[in-house]
Amino acid sequence: MVTRAASRPAELRRHNLSLLLTQIHTHGVLSRVELGQMSGLNRSTVGGLVSELCLLGLVSENVPMGSERVGRPSHLVGPRPDGPYAVAVEVDADHVISAAVRLGGEVAARIDHNLAASAIDPDTVADLIARDLAPLAAAMPPGAWPIGVGVSIPGTVRRTDGTIDQAPNLNWRDEPFASRLAVRLEDQLPVHLGNDADLGALAEQLRGAARSSGNLLYLSGKIGVGGGLVVDGRQLAGSGGFAGEIGHMVLDPAGPPCHCGSAGCLESFVGDAALLRFAGRTGTPGRASLATLMADARDGDQPALDGIRTAARWLGLGIANVVNLLNPEIVIAGGSFADILELARPEIEQELDRHAMTAARSMVELRVPDLGSDSSLLGAAELSFQALLQDPVAASSARQVAG
Amino acid sequence: MVTRAASRPAELRRHNLSLLLTQIHTHGVLSRVELGQMSGLNRSTVGGLVSELCLLGLVSENVPMGSERVGRPSHLVGPRPDGPYAVAVEVDADHVISAAVRLGGEVAARIDHNLAASAIDPDTVADLIARDLAPLAAAMPPGAWPIGVGVSIPGTVRRTDGTIDQAPNLNWRDEPFASRLAVRLEDQLPVHLGNDADLGALAEQLRGAARSSGNLLYLSGKIGVGGGLVVDGRQLAGSGGFAGEIGHMVLDPAGPPCHCGSAGCLESFVGDAALLRFAGRTGTPGRASLATLMADARDGDQPALDGIRTAARWLGLGIANVVNLLNPEIVIAGGSFADILELARPEIEQELDRHAMTAARSMVELRVPDLGSDSSLLGAAELSFQALLQDPVAASSARQVAG
Repeated sequence: MVTRAASRPAELRRHNLSLLLTQIHTHGVLSRVELGQMSGLNRSTVGGLVSELCLLGLVSENVPMGSERVGRPSHLVGPRPDGPYAVAVEVDADHVISAAVRLGGEVAARIDHNLAASAIDPDTVADLIARDLAPLAAAMPPGAWPIGVGVSIPGTVRRTDGTIDQAPNLNWRDEPFASRLAVRLEDQLPVHLGNDADLGALAEQLRGAARSSGNLLYLSGKIGVGGGLVVDGRQLAGSGGFAGEIGHMVLDPAGPPCHCGSAGCLESFVGDAALLRFAGRTGTPGRASLATLMADARDGDQPALDGIRTAARWLGLGIANVVNLLNPEIVIAGGSFADILELARPEIEQELDRHAMTAARSMVELRVPDLGSDSSLLGAAELSFQALLQDPVAASSARQVAG
Repeated sequence: MVTRAASRPAELRRHNLSLLLTQIHTHGVLSRVELGQMSGLNRSTVGGLVSELCLLGLVSENVPMGSERVGRPSHLVGPRPDGPYAVAVEVDADHVISAAVRLGGEVAARIDHNLAASAIDPDTVADLIARDLAPLAAAMPPGAWPIGVGVSIPGTVRRTDGTIDQAPNLNWRDEPFASRLAVRLEDQLPVHLGNDADLGALAEQLRGAARSSGNLLYLSGKIGVGGGLVVDGRQLAGSGGFAGEIGHMVLDPAGPPCHCGSAGCLESFVGDAALLRFAGRTGTPGRASLATLMADARDGDQPALDGIRTAARWLGLGIANVVNLLNPEIVIAGGSFADILELARPEIEQELDRHAMTAARSMVELRVPDLGSDSSLLGAAELSFQALLQDPVAASSARQVAG
């Protein structure tokens, strides 16, 4: 009985530390008064907890100068610049981005590699990420420390063991990439993987375009096409963690063959290769060729614009099918789809009008990501922040001494 | 403090009564020993709770005769035949079925009306249901009492207010059918509505083909086509309660026009009308013409079988899209789809192989409903049982004195 009674206040304190740190992580700099309002905790409790978070090296406080209001100004509490950071990685068919992301979601440093498709094998990518850790650390203030590596993968990640079932556009299959990378890092940092579109949905729901939404679809348009689904407040995983493969939703069985073995998949109408094809262009699909296509369309290049409008109609049809099936309130068009939405929104909306059921259609809003092209990267950072946010004391005490 | 302490045992007792009654409702007749094992409650607590459920007129017990085992045989506890029953109703484009369903899910009495499409207006249907209550009551043992009316509707039911947004094949729109029916019943019984496929999923998950599954799709094939989705253990509702409209998933935008205003919807390839069309038959789509078609196909009628196989391929394609999107472990083919699955399973499985991603495809099993054509009807009964199962004492005390 003694043990149990004694453990209660400690548990409660851990819970409250987690609560406050999560608020700061989600909303950025907050005053002590705001922290009290959000948490329901009283002034002295908030003060004590903030002091502990400061001692743990996670947050810092300062008293705002020149406040015009009468009375004692409330201390402002925010993530500490030389505090913990997540190493977030986006792996895609033609590039790898490594970044240092601070508590609060700020990208503090970034390394962007363009890679030839032939170079995207698991060993090369794992080596690249491992090599990026030192320059990222060097770009951070002395004392800042990495808490883990989160990796965004354009493929299906198995719920059971976290291995990659398949990432078709990387040509990876049954790939234990987390273990492979952990070995390179000599197990100094925990490694987590997630599907790129799932991570995009996570980040946009946390601090982006879907902040208050429990029903959203995040669409990721790149060489491959992915979907991240949040329904009734929860991220959909499905039985094995493979839910969200909207890129291979068949929209016309007589359509173009898809590399997945099927035909007429959404990806074969709206992926990077299809966009170039519809615009009458040759060349390698990827970030560079797509950026040129979109820039040309904005400059009034008619074939480019026509191609984008054709893809937009297929995209609208694909979205209509998901709207009928899942009744989301927000659809976020990520990657190339953000450009398509900006350049050809009427074509997308028109297909929604034609193909989606009235009630569900009237509720849905199409948006570009608030986090720009960083949604998946920032979602990957969240994978690393989870342990720290859940138990700030335990995670900080595991900190490596650095600087 | 006194109030709070005193209320605890009463709350706990209510919780335990709910727990035991739910076990009996789900599994049927159980011994006291089994009830103890399932609930974790001890022998004397189970005995006391069972006595109370008996006093409430909900269950009865008896000691099995002629047991060959040594020792005192365990009392068997089961739903009382003259106990509460739900009035379950299935409304469809060409029929209305009213039934009395006992605790435990047994259909004790049933009235089946064939209706011309022109007769399916909300007033006529509400009158019909209200008139069925007396003959249903007459078919039950003296003393049995109705607890509520649950109605299965082939359309979208709004989450916010329970009205029918649209039921295209009934030609109903913005229909407050629950209130309309409650007025006919002089507010003597609570009325609940649900979407037919959602209710099918509910019943099959409770005591049918998906008993242990947290990820399932129930497909309802009739004049209209519906889908009920359970993902990660929960029924999907979507933002407004409109999720599951798989019948209007577009599989080919150049396909046949659909009454919904779109074209090439799944329903236009696998609904009753499409089945007759593919088989080269004229005549009114509905239960009668479909039963004949299926019987003919079983007797070796080649055009009938060919038509069913064509529809089966489209059905397989539609299922593949949902498998990619939601990664279910069980797909239940309800209504006419049960016949299609029995007659043309290879065609369905082949399309799944072609169009679904390997990992998700390998996990999914196609099944016919364990509850036959009664899944939606039994799901409708569950809507009425909910209040009784949650609080057996309060719901029983609201009982009308009958017999």
